Amino acid sequence: MLKRSDITSSEAELTSYYSELESYSLSPLWTATDVGNREPKSKAVPFMWHWSDIRPRALRATELVGTAQAERRVLRLLNPGLGGRTATTNTLFGGIQIVMPGEVARAHRHTPSALRFIIESEGGYTNVNGEPIPMLPGDLVLTPNWTWHDHANDTTKPMIWLDGLDVPLVNLLESAFFQDYESETQALSEDSGASLLKYGAGALRPAWESPPEWPSPLLHYPWSQAREALTKLTGVTAGSPFDGVVLEYVNPATNGPVMPTIACTIHMLRPGERTKMHRHTSSAIYHAVEGSGYAEIEGQRLDWADKDVFCVPGWTWHRHANPSDRPVFLFSYSDVPVLRSIGLYREEEGAES
Amino acid sequence: MLKRSDITSSEAELTSYYSELESYSLSPLWTATDVGNREPKSKAVPFMWHWSDIRPRALRATELVGTAQAERRVLRLLNPGLGGRTATTNTLFGGIQIVMPGEVARAHRHTPSALRFIIESEGGYTNVNGEPIPMLPGDLVLTPNWTWHDHANDTTKPMIWLDGLDVPLVNLLESAFFQDYESETQALSEDSGASLLKYGAGALRPAWESPPEWPSPLLHYPWSQAREALTKLTGVTAGSPFDGVVLEYVNPATNGPVMPTIACTIHMLRPGERTKMHRHTSSAIYHAVEGSGYAEIEGQRLDWADKDVFCVPGWTWHRHANPSDRPVFLFSYSDVPVLRSIGLYREEEGAES
Amino acid sequence: MLKRSDITSSEAELTSYYSELESYSLSPLWTATDVGNREPKSKAVPFMWHWSDIRPRALRATELVGTAQAERRVLRLLNPGLGGRTATTNTLFGGIQIVMPGEVARAHRHTPSALRFIIESEGGYTNVNGEPIPMLPGDLVLTPNWTWHDHANDTTKPMIWLDGLDVPLVNLLESAFFQDYESETQALSEDSGASLLKYGAGALRPAWESPPEWPSPLLHYPWSQAREALTKLTGVTAGSPFDGVVLEYVNPATNGPVMPTIACTIHMLRPGERTKMHRHTSSAIYHAVEGSGYAEIEGQRLDWADKDVFCVPGWTWHRHANPSDRPVFLFSYSDVPVLRSIGLYREEEGAES
Amino acid sequence: MLKRSDITSSEAELTSYYSELESYSLSPLWTATDVGNREPKSKAVPFMWHWSDIRPRALRATELVGTAQAERRVLRLLNPGLGGRTATTNTLFGGIQIVMPGEVARAHRHTPSALRFIIESEGGYTNVNGEPIPMLPGDLVLTPNWTWHDHANDTTKPMIWLDGLDVPLVNLLESAFFQDYESETQALSEDSGASLLKYGAGALRPAWESPPEWPSPLLHYPWSQAREALTKLTGVTAGSPFDGVVLEYVNPATNGPVMPTIACTIHMLRPGERTKMHRHTSSAIYHAVEGSGYAEIEGQRLDWADKDVFCVPGWTWHRHANPSDRPVFLFSYSDVPVLRSIGLYREEEGAES
Repeated sequence: MLKRSDITSSEAELTSYYSELESYSLSPLWTATDVGNREPKSKAVPFMWHWSDIRPRALRATELVGTAQAERRVLRLLNPGLGGRTATTNTLFGGIQIVMPGEVARAHRHTPSALRFIIESEGGYTNVNGEPIPMLPGDLVLTPNWTWHDHANDTTKPMIWLDGLDVPLVNLLESAFFQDYESETQALSEDSGASLLKYGAGALRPAWESPPEWPSPLLHYPWSQAREALTKLTGVTAGSPFDGVVLEYVNPATNGPVMPTIACTIHMLRPGERTKMHRHTSSAIYHAVEGSGYAEIEGQRLDWADKDVFCVPGWTWHRHANPSDRPVFLFSYSDVPVLRSIGLYREEEGAES
Repeated sequence: MLKRSDITSSEAELTSYYSELESYSLSPLWTATDVGNREPKSKAVPFMWHWSDIRPRALRATELVGTAQAERRVLRLLNPGLGGRTATTNTLFGGIQIVMPGEVARAHRHTPSALRFIIESEGGYTNVNGEPIPMLPGDLVLTPNWTWHDHANDTTKPMIWLDGLDVPLVNLLESAFFQDYESETQALSEDSGASLLKYGAGALRPAWESPPEWPSPLLHYPWSQAREALTKLTGVTAGSPFDGVVLEYVNPATNGPVMPTIACTIHMLRPGERTKMHRHTSSAIYHAVEGSGYAEIEGQRLDWADKDVFCVPGWTWHRHANPSDRPVFLFSYSDVPVLRSIGLYREEEGAES
Repeated sequence: MLKRSDITSSEAELTSYYSELESYSLSPLWTATDVGNREPKSKAVPFMWHWSDIRPRALRATELVGTAQAERRVLRLLNPGLGGRTATTNTLFGGIQIVMPGEVARAHRHTPSALRFIIESEGGYTNVNGEPIPMLPGDLVLTPNWTWHDHANDTTKPMIWLDGLDVPLVNLLESAFFQDYESETQALSEDSGASLLKYGAGALRPAWESPPEWPSPLLHYPWSQAREALTKLTGVTAGSPFDGVVLEYVNPATNGPVMPTIACTIHMLRPGERTKMHRHTSSAIYHAVEGSGYAEIEGQRLDWADKDVFCVPGWTWHRHANPSDRPVFLFSYSDVPVLRSIGLYREEEGAES
Repeated sequence: MLKRSDITSSEAELTSYYSELESYSLSPLWTATDVGNREPKSKAVPFMWHWSDIRPRALRATELVGTAQAERRVLRLLNPGLGGRTATTNTLFGGIQIVMPGEVARAHRHTPSALRFIIESEGGYTNVNGEPIPMLPGDLVLTPNWTWHDHANDTTKPMIWLDGLDVPLVNLLESAFFQDYESETQALSEDSGASLLKYGAGALRPAWESPPEWPSPLLHYPWSQAREALTKLTGVTAGSPFDGVVLEYVNPATNGPVMPTIACTIHMLRPGERTKMHRHTSSAIYHAVEGSGYAEIEGQRLDWADKDVFCVPGWTWHRHANPSDRPVFLFSYSDVPVLRSIGLYREEEGAES
C-alpha cells in the first residue's frame, strides 16, 4: 500500500543540511517560495498616465535633448510596481515619442517588435525596410522584429505618438539584439501606399504573390478605416461582453495577430455601456483615442480622458465603462499571442454584480 | 532636408527635469540601461552538477524529510548566476527527485510543464490523468501543463530521476497556477501501455481516432527505443555538426516538440567526436545518460561523467566532445519551442578553430 | 548485370492470352491507351457564349417554364467537347439563372458548391443558412457545399446571374448529394449584412469570435468594393504578367480560396494591355463584367464583349487582351484549389512572341 | 408575397425552344439527368480477383512480353462496371506487376502516384530518386507523384507485387504527365536504408533537418514493423468497429496520409470478428496479406483467401469478417485524402442487424 511518508527532523539537522547543499548549488524545493502558488500575482500595478501630464513634458524634452543625443526621444511609462525595468506591464512597454519639424530619428533595427499609434501629426512618416508609411492621428504603424526603421517629420508641427513594444518580454527572455543602420536614414522608396491597397482592401488579395508570414505584408492600418468599421459594426452586433465592440488588427498573411508577440485591438464602448468583469493571464496597455470613461481594475476606478494611457496587469479583474452620451474609442495592445502560442493563456469570467 | 537635431542642456536642467518626470512615473528612454544592447548576455552561468555530489545528498534528504513534509522531495539545481530563483537557466529548471520504496508523491497539477528522465529505478510509475506510465532508467516521461500527476514507488529500491520544468519561464510570464487533487493519488487505470503501442510504433498511426494536439497522445518514450534508434542511425548519417547524432522526441499528433515550451533531444557522440561551436538564443540543460566527456562553453571546459547534469545558458558559444573510445549518450531539454513560436530564436555558427 | 528483357511472341499467342485475361477482368497494361501520355489533353474546347445570344433565350425560358416546373430556371453553358455532361470545363459548370419578379427558387442544398455573379438585378437576395445576402450587379454571392439556399426576387425587374458550380467535379468523384428543404423558403433572418461588416472590412476582424473554416464567414463580396480595390491598385502595381491586375476573393477565416473546390478572381486589364501566354492544369470560366476584349486560346482568338462568358480548358495556352482605350473587368472562377490540394497543379510560362 | 411560379407550355413549344438552345451550346438545366440525385451511385461494382487466377497469368506474361516490350509488365485489375477505363474503382487502380530475375523495369516518372505492396520477393528493390528501397513480402514502397523510379530484380526468383495508383483520378482531372528517364536505370546510391532509420523509428525524429512535406521522407514501410505493431496493439484496444484494428501508414513530415491522393492502412481482424456496416464516399482496394475471410458489400458476400484483391466502390454498404480461428491481415488503399481535402468525404454508420 503506497502512502505519503512522515519524518520528523530537528531544525539543526535541516539547517546543517541546507547549508551543505548550498555549497554545491543545490537547494531543497520544499522551502522554495516561488513555486506552488495557486494563481499568479503580477508585480505590475494598474496605473494611469494622463495626457495632460505627459504632453507638456514631452514638449519640454524637445528643448532639452535633440535626436543626436537621444537615439529616440521617448518618455517611458514606467509601471511603479516593476522597480525601474523598462516596462509598463510585465511583458509590454509603452512610451511617448516626439519628433519635431525637420527632425529624423535615425535608422536602426532590433528584435523587440514595435508599434506606433499616432496621437498628433499632420503628416510625417516611418520608413520600414525602405517603404515609407504615412502617420496620421489614429493610424497604427508596425515595425516588426528586426525590420529597419527610421522616423521623419517633414511637416511644420510636432509629431507625437504612442510607442508600444515587447521590450520587457524580450528582456525577460534574454533575446534582445540591436543594430544601427549604415546611415542615418534609409533611402526612400516611392510613397506608394501599395501595401495598404494590396492587403488592406477587405477579403480580396493579390492573386499573383504569396507574402511570407513575417513580417506582415501590411504595416499600416489607417484610423479612417478602423473607425468606420467599428461604427458600422456597432449597429449590427452586441460585440464582446467584456471588451465592447472590438476589432483585432490582423496580419493578412496569417489572419493572426499583427506580430507574433503583440496583438492590437480597437474598441468602441457605446454610450452608457459598462462591460462585464473578466481577467486573463495576458496584460494590456490601453490608449484613449476619443472620449472619456473609466476602467475598474481590482476594485480600483481609473478615470481616463482623451489620449490618456493606462495598463491592466495580467490576471487582474477589470471592466470598462463609458458613462458619457457618445461613443468612445480605446486602442489596446497585449501579449495574448505569446501566452496562447505556448499554452499559458487563461481567461476567467467574473460573477455578476 | 531632414536631419538629427543637436541640443546642449546643462546637467542641472536635466536633473531637475528627470526628477519631475519621476513623480509622474515617466522616465527618459535615452538614459535607460536595459535597452539597446547589441546582443543578449544571460545572467545564468555555465555550470556542472556532479552526480557524485548529488546522489548522497538526495539519499540524505530521504532521512530528513518525508513526502508528507515535501510536496515533492526534489533537490533544485540552482544556477549560481540567477540569485536564488528556482532556475537552472533563465527559463528552465532542473531538479533531482527521489521517491523511496512504498512512498507516493501526492497528486496535483500546475501550469508549468514537466518531464522526468529516469536515472535509477526498478519499476515504479507516474500516473498521468489516470494512466500509469512505467519509469525505467533512461525513459522519458511527460506531465504536460495542467495534467494531473502523482508518482509512486512500489519497488524495493529508491527511484531517482531528473525533473525538467519550465517553472522559470512560467514565473517570468506570471502565469503559474497550481492545484491539489482531491485525494493523494489518482485511481489507477489498467497499466495497458496502450498509448505507447498506439503512438510509438513508427510511422503508423491508429486510423480510428484523431488525438488532440495537447497533451501529446504519447507521454512515454522508453530508453530501449531511443538508444536503439540512435545506435542504428549512427552508421548511416553524420548527424548534426554541432550536436552529434541527435533525435528529437516528438508529439506524434503534431510532429512538433513534446510540449509547447520544452523540446527534448537525445544525442550520441561517437568515440573521438568533437562538435563545431555554435550559439543560440535558447538555453539547455544536459544530462549524461552513459559515458563521459566534456563541454566547452564560452572558453570554459566542463568535464562530465555518467549521470552528471550541466547547463548551457542562452547565446553562449559551446561545443561537445567525447574523447573516450566508446559512444556516449546525452539527454537534453531546451526552450527552443518558445523562442521559435514568437520569432526570437536565432542561431550562429562559430568560425572554425 | 540488370537489363530490360526482350521477347518475341506471335500475334496469335498474344490475342489468345489477352482474351483469356478478359474473362477474369484482367487486362495488360502495355496495351492501355489511357496511361503514359506525355501531357494532358482536355476533352473540353475553348468556347464563347455571347450575352446577346443568352439573354433573349433566358427571357424566353420565363415564358415557357415556371419555378414550379424547374427547380432552378437555368440555361446550362455546355462545352461542345464534353458530350452532353453538365459541364462547361472538365470540372466546372457555368449557367445563366433568371428569377422573375415575385418568384422564389425553392430552398435546397447539395454537395456541389455554388457561386452567383450577379448580372442584372435591382435588389433581390439569396438566403443562405437563414441569412439573406443582397444581390446587386457585380456582386459575388456564395452558397458553399451543403448550405441551404433559396433565391427570391422581390423587385419589379428580372434578376439574372451567372451560376458557377463544381458539379462536373463532384460528379467525376461520384460524391453528389442533394436534399430539399422542408418548406419552399427558409425563414428570413434580419437583413443585417452583419457578416460583411464583420469580415469584409479590411485587415480587421471581430476579436470576440473565431469562425469555423467552413463555410466562409463571408458569403457576399460586393462589386463596389472589388471594383474600387482594383482601380486603386492599378496605379501602384504591374500585377500579374499573365492575368492583369488580379485580386482573389478569399475566405477570411483561412485566407484561402472562397470554397475548397473553387477559387474566384477579379481581373482588370488596362487599356492596350495584352498579357503573356501561360497554361496550367486548372481550367477556368470567365465573365466580362465591363468592357470588351479578346482571349487567345491555343491559337484561336475569341472576342468578347460585356456580359459574355467563355471558358479556358486545362493545360491550354492562353492570354488576355484589352485593345480598347478603357479599363476592362473580367470575373473568373477555377478549380485551382482542387489541384493544388492534391499536388496536381502545374503551370508553364510561354516563350515570348 | 414570393412564391413559385407555374406555367403550362406545349410540348411543341418546348421542343422547338430546346432545339434552338442547342445551336448555341445552351441547354436547360431542368431536363438534365446528371444533377439533383439524392446520393451517389458508383458505376464501379464490388469485385474480387483471386490470386489463384492472377498468379499463373502473371507468370504466363513473362513468357509473352519482355520489359523491352512492356514499359511495365502489369496485369490491370479492371472493374467490370467501368467500361474499360484503367480503373479498379472510380479513382483508384490496382495491378499485378512481375519482374523476372535479371530484369529491370526502366526509369520514368509520372504525376499519378504509386505504391507497391510486395507479394513475392526474395530481395530486389525499387530505386526512388536515386535511393534504393528494399522490397520484401508485405513491405509497402512508395513512388509519389513525379518521383523517378525503376525496379530491379537481382535475385533468382520472380518478384510479384500489387501496384496501387491514382491513375483513374488523375485521368478524371486531366492532369497526367509522363516522362522517361535519360537512361534505363538510375545510378544506385548506397543501399543505406537511412530514411527508414531516420523517419521510421517511433516518435523520434532527426533534429538536424526538416524534411519537405512532399515527397514523404519515408518511402519504405517494412512488413515486420507493421505486423508487430498490429499484433501488439490487438491486446490493448478494440480498434475500429468498422475496420478492425487498423493502422494508417503516415508521412512522418505531415502526420497525414502517405501521399496527397492515397491513404494506406493495414488491418487485423481477430478470430471470429465481423465488423459493423458502414459506407463512405471514398472507395478502396483491399489485398489479403495473410489468412482468409469475406466481405459483405451491398448484400453480396465476397470470399477471399491469401493474396486475393477486391474493391469496395464509394458509398456502398460494407463490412469485413474473419470466420477463421486465427488473426488475418488486410492491406488497403483509398482516396480518402482527396475527398477530405475538398470537403466531399462523408461517412454513414449502418443500422445494426
